[in-house]
Amino acid sequence: MPDGSNAGEALPVATNRLRLRVKTQSNTNPAELKTIITQIDASIASFLDGCSLTTNLDEAIRYAVLGGGKRLRPVLAWRAAEACGRAGACSIPAGIAVELIHAFSLVHDDLPAMDDDDLRRGRPTLHIQSGEAMAILAGDAMLTLAFEVIMDPSSALEESARPRLLGEVCAGTRAMIVGQVHDTLGGMPESLSEEEKLQLIHRNKTGALISAACRMGAICADADENQLASITEFSEAIGLQFQVVDDLLDAEGDAATVGKATGKDIEAGKLTYPSVLGIAGSRKVAADLHDRAMAAAQSLGPDGAGLVGLLEKLTNRQH
Amino acid sequence: MPDGSNAGEALPVATNRLRLRVKTQSNTNPAELKTIITQIDASIASFLDGCSLTTNLDEAIRYAVLGGGKRLRPVLAWRAAEACGRAGACSIPAGIAVELIHAFSLVHDDLPAMDDDDLRRGRPTLHIQSGEAMAILAGDAMLTLAFEVIMDPSSALEESARPRLLGEVCAGTRAMIVGQVHDTLGGMPESLSEEEKLQLIHRNKTGALISAACRMGAICADADENQLASITEFSEAIGLQFQVVDDLLDAEGDAATVGKATGKDIEAGKLTYPSVLGIAGSRKVAADLHDRAMAAAQSLGPDGAGLVGLLEKLTNRQH
Repeated sequence: MPDGSNAGEALPVATNRLRLRVKTQSNTNPAELKTIITQIDASIASFLDGCSLTTNLDEAIRYAVLGGGKRLRPVLAWRAAEACGRAGACSIPAGIAVELIHAFSLVHDDLPAMDDDDLRRGRPTLHIQSGEAMAILAGDAMLTLAFEVIMDPSSALEESARPRLLGEVCAGTRAMIVGQVHDTLGGMPESLSEEEKLQLIHRNKTGALISAACRMGAICADADENQLASITEFSEAIGLQFQVVDDLLDAEGDAATVGKATGKDIEAGKLTYPSVLGIAGSRKVAADLHDRAMAAAQSLGPDGAGLVGLLEKLTNRQH
Repeated sequence: MPDGSNAGEALPVATNRLRLRVKTQSNTNPAELKTIITQIDASIASFLDGCSLTTNLDEAIRYAVLGGGKRLRPVLAWRAAEACGRAGACSIPAGIAVELIHAFSLVHDDLPAMDDDDLRRGRPTLHIQSGEAMAILAGDAMLTLAFEVIMDPSSALEESARPRLLGEVCAGTRAMIVGQVHDTLGGMPESLSEEEKLQLIHRNKTGALISAACRMGAICADADENQLASITEFSEAIGLQFQVVDDLLDAEGDAATVGKATGKDIEAGKLTYPSVLGIAGSRKVAADLHDRAMAAAQSLGPDGAGLVGLLEKLTNRQH
C-alpha cells in the first residue's frame, strides 16, 4: 500500500516492511505489562503515602497521577533497565519521578489559560474536579515531588545514580516546558523551516521526557557507556516518533470527521506533521524513526525484547 | 507604650525592651547590603544567561525574578553562611535557588485563579505582562531551574553539599505549597485551634522557605552541627516572625483605611494574627519570636552580626 493512500483510515503507521526486520525477540506479553503497571501504580501510591501531604492536596495529586493513563514513561524506564541487564523494578523511583512530571504537565496544560480541556482520560480534568487553584498548586507539588522521589533515602537507588537522575529530570522537564512555550506561544527563530520548527517543538515537548524516562531506567541499571548510548538513540527516535504517530492518528481521525480537529489546529496556529509534511511524508518520518529505534533496541541484544515490544505497540497503536 | 495602644499607627513591632538586649554587634550597613544584593542579582542573571532558554520564556523569568524585590532569602543565606564562618558569596547558588522558588510562588499566587493580583512590586504581575499561559509555564520553569542551579557543575558548591541543599529546596517548596493550600483552600484538621491553624499555615507558607534559605547558607558554609542548630532555631523564629509582622503592618494599615483589607481577609476566610490574637497578642508573639531569633544569632558569636542586622531590619520594617 503506497504511503498516503489510506489517509482516511486509522491504520498502523509503520509498514510491514519494517516489522519484518525485527531480530531481537519482541516481548509484548500483555499479562506481564499489566503486572509491571500494577507494581508501578502501587509504588506511586506508596510514595505518596509516605509524603503525608494535607488531605485535599493528596487527593488531587492521586486523582491526577493515578486516575487512568498508560504509564508509558515508567514502563519505558522499566524496559530500559531490563535492556541494560537488571531487573526492571530497579527503575521504579525513576518511573515515579517521570510519571509525576508527566502528570503535572497534563494538569497545567489542561488549565483554562492553556488548552482549556475539561476531559482527560475520560474523566473531568483536575481543575474541573477540584478547582483551578488546586490544579495549579497540585501541579507545582507534583513537580517538586518528582525531585523528592529521586532523593528519597529509603529507595534502593545507588547514591552515585541520584545526581545523574536529577539531571535527567531537570533536563527533561525544562525541555518539556520550552516545547510547550514554543507550541502555544511561539518564539522560535524565524530562520527555521516549518519542519525544523515542528522538530524543535516535539523533541522538547514530548521527546525530552520520554528520552529522560529511558535514560533514567538505564542509569538505574548502572548501564555502561555503550548501553546508555543505545538507549539514548532508541529514546530520541521513539520520543519523536510518538508525536508523529499522535499527529497521524489525529489527522486520520480528522478525515473521518470532516477535518474538524485539523482546522482547530490550524486556527490555533499549531504545526503538526501532517499539516507540514502531508500524510505520506509523516508516515515516512514515522517509519524512519521506527527503524532507528529498532536498530538501537536490537543492539542491546536479547535483553532489549521489552523495548522492541513497546516500540511495536507504540508504532501500531490506534489511539 | 502598652501593647495595642497604637493600633492605628505604623510603628515598629518590636519594643525597645528587646533591642536593648542585643549583644552581638548588629551589621546593618546599607552600602554593604546593596553590594551583596548587586552581586546576587548579577549571579541570577549570569545563571539565566547560561540556561539559554527560548527568548520569550527567558524574558518572562527575568521579569519575574529580577524586577524589584528585596532578595531577602538570598541575603539570609549569605548572612547565614557568614555566621558560620565563611564568605557569604559561597551561598550564592543556594540564594539563586531560593529566590527562583520565591519568585515562582509569587507568579503562580498572583494568577487570576489564585489571588488575582494585577500589581507586584509596583509593576504589572507577570500574567498581566505576558499572559496567563506564560505565567504558568514560566513559574514551572523557575521551579525546575531552582533544582538545576544546585546541580550546576560549574558552581563551586562542594559535592557533599548538593544533596543536602536539594533536600532543603524540596522541603521548603513542598511546605510552601502545603501552606498555600491551607491558606487558600483550607483542609486543615478541624481539631486545631485558630492559633494552631495560623501557625500551621505560616510555618509552611512563608516560614519554610525562609528557614530553607538560612539552612542552605549554613550548609554552603559547611556548618558544624551546633552552628546548623543555631541557624535552624534562628530561621524558624524569623520565618514565623516575618509573617506576624506582615499581618501587623497590614492590620495597622487597615486601621488607617477603615479596616478595608481586614474585611477582605475575613471575607476570604483567611486567618491573620491580629484577627485571631488581636494587635497586642500579635505584638507579643512577634516580640517573643524576635527574642528567640536574637538568642540564636548571638550564640553564633561575632560572625552573627549580619543575621542580627537582618533581624533588626525585619523587625522594624514599615512595609
